[in-house]
Amino acid sequence: MRRWPYQLSAEELRAAFTEALDPQLAQHHVVHTAGYQDAIRRIANQLQCEATEAAVLARRNAADAAGYARQLLASTATGVMLVDAGFAIPGTFTLAEQGQATGITQREIIRLETLAEGLIKEADDPREWFSAVRDALRAGIGRGAVGVKTICAYRATLKLQPVDTDALGVAFSAIRLRAERGELPRLSGSAICHALLFEAAQACRELDVPLQVHCGFGDPDEDLAEASPLGLRMLFIDPAYRGLRVALLHCYPYHREAAYLCSVFPDVYMDLSLTIPFAGLEGDRAMRETLGLCPTSKLLYASDASRYPEVFFVAAAAHREALAGALGELVDHGVLDNAAAAGAGRQVLAENARRIYNLKD
Amino acid sequence: MRRWPYQLSAEELRAAFTEALDPQLAQHHVVHTAGYQDAIRRIANQLQCEATEAAVLARRNAADAAGYARQLLASTATGVMLVDAGFAIPGTFTLAEQGQATGITQREIIRLETLAEGLIKEADDPREWFSAVRDALRAGIGRGAVGVKTICAYRATLKLQPVDTDALGVAFSAIRLRAERGELPRLSGSAICHALLFEAAQACRELDVPLQVHCGFGDPDEDLAEASPLGLRMLFIDPAYRGLRVALLHCYPYHREAAYLCSVFPDVYMDLSLTIPFAGLEGDRAMRETLGLCPTSKLLYASDASRYPEVFFVAAAAHREALAGALGELVDHGVLDNAAAAGAGRQVLAENARRIYNLKD
Amino acid sequence: MRRWPYQLSAEELRAAFTEALDPQLAQHHVVHTAGYQDAIRRIANQLQCEATEAAVLARRNAADAAGYARQLLASTATGVMLVDAGFAIPGTFTLAEQGQATGITQREIIRLETLAEGLIKEADDPREWFSAVRDALRAGIGRGAVGVKTICAYRATLKLQPVDTDALGVAFSAIRLRAERGELPRLSGSAICHALLFEAAQACRELDVPLQVHCGFGDPDEDLAEASPLGLRMLFIDPAYRGLRVALLHCYPYHREAAYLCSVFPDVYMDLSLTIPFAGLEGDRAMRETLGLCPTSKLLYASDASRYPEVFFVAAAAHREALAGALGELVDHGVLDNAAAAGAGRQVLAENARRIYNLKD
Repeated sequence: MRRWPYQLSAEELRAAFTEALDPQLAQHHVVHTAGYQDAIRRIANQLQCEATEAAVLARRNAADAAGYARQLLASTATGVMLVDAGFAIPGTFTLAEQGQATGITQREIIRLETLAEGLIKEADDPREWFSAVRDALRAGIGRGAVGVKTICAYRATLKLQPVDTDALGVAFSAIRLRAERGELPRLSGSAICHALLFEAAQACRELDVPLQVHCGFGDPDEDLAEASPLGLRMLFIDPAYRGLRVALLHCYPYHREAAYLCSVFPDVYMDLSLTIPFAGLEGDRAMRETLGLCPTSKLLYASDASRYPEVFFVAAAAHREALAGALGELVDHGVLDNAAAAGAGRQVLAENARRIYNLKD
Repeated sequence: MRRWPYQLSAEELRAAFTEALDPQLAQHHVVHTAGYQDAIRRIANQLQCEATEAAVLARRNAADAAGYARQLLASTATGVMLVDAGFAIPGTFTLAEQGQATGITQREIIRLETLAEGLIKEADDPREWFSAVRDALRAGIGRGAVGVKTICAYRATLKLQPVDTDALGVAFSAIRLRAERGELPRLSGSAICHALLFEAAQACRELDVPLQVHCGFGDPDEDLAEASPLGLRMLFIDPAYRGLRVALLHCYPYHREAAYLCSVFPDVYMDLSLTIPFAGLEGDRAMRETLGLCPTSKLLYASDASRYPEVFFVAAAAHREALAGALGELVDHGVLDNAAAAGAGRQVLAENARRIYNLKD
Repeated sequence: MRRWPYQLSAEELRAAFTEALDPQLAQHHVVHTAGYQDAIRRIANQLQCEATEAAVLARRNAADAAGYARQLLASTATGVMLVDAGFAIPGTFTLAEQGQATGITQREIIRLETLAEGLIKEADDPREWFSAVRDALRAGIGRGAVGVKTICAYRATLKLQPVDTDALGVAFSAIRLRAERGELPRLSGSAICHALLFEAAQACRELDVPLQVHCGFGDPDEDLAEASPLGLRMLFIDPAYRGLRVALLHCYPYHREAAYLCSVFPDVYMDLSLTIPFAGLEGDRAMRETLGLCPTSKLLYASDASRYPEVFFVAAAAHREALAGALGELVDHGVLDNAAAAGAGRQVLAENARRIYNLKD
């Protein structure tokens, strides 16, 4: 999260509720989305102020930053935060600081590509590089990280292909050359990103931690046409990855496909994360559609929030409502009784994550 | 169906309500799906026992097997069962036995790939093989079969490509060699599966019987990314297949696409089959979405049930409710009056199938 | 629109509510769609006759053609009609005639492929041809056209690929040869259609008019598998097109994908057009799903109507209801207040189009 205290502008708040990178969206269009209107209403209700962006900003900017943030976060009833620390930008809390500032236990998720980019300069060939990546993953897990996340969808198609050793060698050399010149190495292209993903998958399996895979919508650096979780099939059927727990993140609009994968492969899990706070009532629909094929033992709560307490708050509140709506629909139709619905809610909001990430209470 | 009497275990019942092949799903997750919970509730209600898996199993395992099965099947009001006999495994009724055991008329659907695999050893080249397949299809239809089913989606992509004669020859030789060695020949790959599908399509057209095509979700042997019915376009636009009736089976989550195909091509039909008993309230949604573009004269009832009377029962009950819900929604909005809705229900549940499969009353 | 007066047959009316080209659909199946039943009910209600096809046709065929058409069109409250004039077939009003006959302001949308086909004979190579196309677009806009529409989806995949100059040259020569022989030149294939689309995109950007792109479902000349708007990504990320306004037309069943594009790219807009009158209550669902990610400042009303006043009437009435339903759902959940919902309705029904097409009141 952004290190408080700070004053938040309207554009910053809007930008937190869109995947757009172009500022025109925050300037002109985000206020015309159901997600943002819903967010303003929820925050205003919590702050007991008028349900307008201006009133919300005035109230939050006048408040004591730490107290304000802790109040919003407390209402999310978060027991543990799993944090992708590779997303950190300047002015962000370290994990330790964040734990202290929020009073919430923090556990690290290692961002695969960020880690691997930092190791490319020291390696002479892909084999050495992969070995260093595996060592670093092992060390990270040893230090307390509980999972690994790949953002392959931002760098390559998610339609995984077997490794092409020649293409991998070429890609590796090109990126390493850039790193040697002191430029920031940036992994991209299927040859190198898929090979890295496969290595990480084997490492995660050995280390007994889940591999999170960004699927579905995200910022426009990603080609959504290439981001269906169905493309990950090799991870699910190749015996080399047997037992690997895979968490499909976000998924929308491929959540029906993700739910199918959860229904047939034993170690596949999914979340809807930013779909819920960003997509208005469509988040509720996505939840109901997901609970068609996806067992409630396979669905995970996630906020995808990163910088502002407001997003954590809105995501948690909207997620609970969407889940209550979907489970309530099942109760209304006599499919579940109240106890079963409550049990399913506990699975999604806590128990599944505790089990899959081996979290201690 | 499995030859009764037999005792049914919890894992067997669960396995009947999932497409998963890995037993971990039946062990740990199926009980957490809306579909299975709904199934237990429906069966329990029918058996007038407590709505728990244990109570249902106790009741059914204590009952007279034949009477129990007949009672569940009678409640489905099935006039004729169209049975894919190529799916038979040991311990299964023959079609004749099944007719006698259930008291319901049975008509065979020929499973294309099973039939064709049995003929490969006798053929010297693809041309001879295709000729034998066509002869066997003709003979099967002559003996009373009413349609042909392809499970191409389990063996190749459904994105049909024109036949590549060279690749076909290579694939044929490889499979035939295995057959000669006494191994079980198994068709797979686009070259041979698509060529076979095209041959069968022409044969079905000549024999005036529908070709059923498995689309959409199924067990994990299939790559769902390759199983959209949109890939079958060549069957719909190539004049060689003009007049061929194609029944798209299952379809979910591509049911909107299937409905579109039904809306623009005169001889394309669809069903939702296992979507309804497996996907909880999502089956109801799929039905409503399907009735967006799909004419009610194009939608077919199907259970996709195979082994247990319970699945036939649940599928029929859930299907009627889903259909009633979707048609009721149209009545509520004034789009259909009650008589039109009832007529549409009769089309889907019986009339369309009678017409398309040339079934006599 | 078809030049009135004329008598309308049942088959003609049905054909106006389907994308099917094969007359069997209008003969046997269209009456069994929710969309057509809804259309008959709406028209009958407006004409105050019995809600049957026969009564509607008798009433409309007995009425004064001009008065009848004007009455239906007046009820749509259309301020300006944006007309794809490249779709004209014999017996159709010219744009000037249509303005006079309907009393509604008409503005032309230039159909790119039709325009370009007419210019191929005079050009010696693609470069000359593109130059002539750009000149003609500039002239058309100068004469008052307000946008350009591409039907690339009917001629090639929408998965845009960089121009392959050699393939373009070959395709150009082949089509030009046909034109020289006096045959009707018909653009098809990705090499030439994509290159033309890219030229038009640059021209539209320079001329400051939107480029409309047919996406999603349409008549069966199109392969729906190739018609997702996600394929247009190059138009959104290549700086060469920065500032180009792109209107995604129809979109269903890719409307969730289209909504995503609208949510992250500043100059992408969408409509649902024929989805609404053709797909029954599924049109309402598509509207709700669209308003998940799509800002209300990005969604456009469109009828996709072309020949008959009945379709304009039904599309407008159904569209208003679908929009009211979707916005009402947001009001019911407290996401929008009434004033915000009314404002969003005005955006979709008029303001967005006025702004994007630079229409004067």
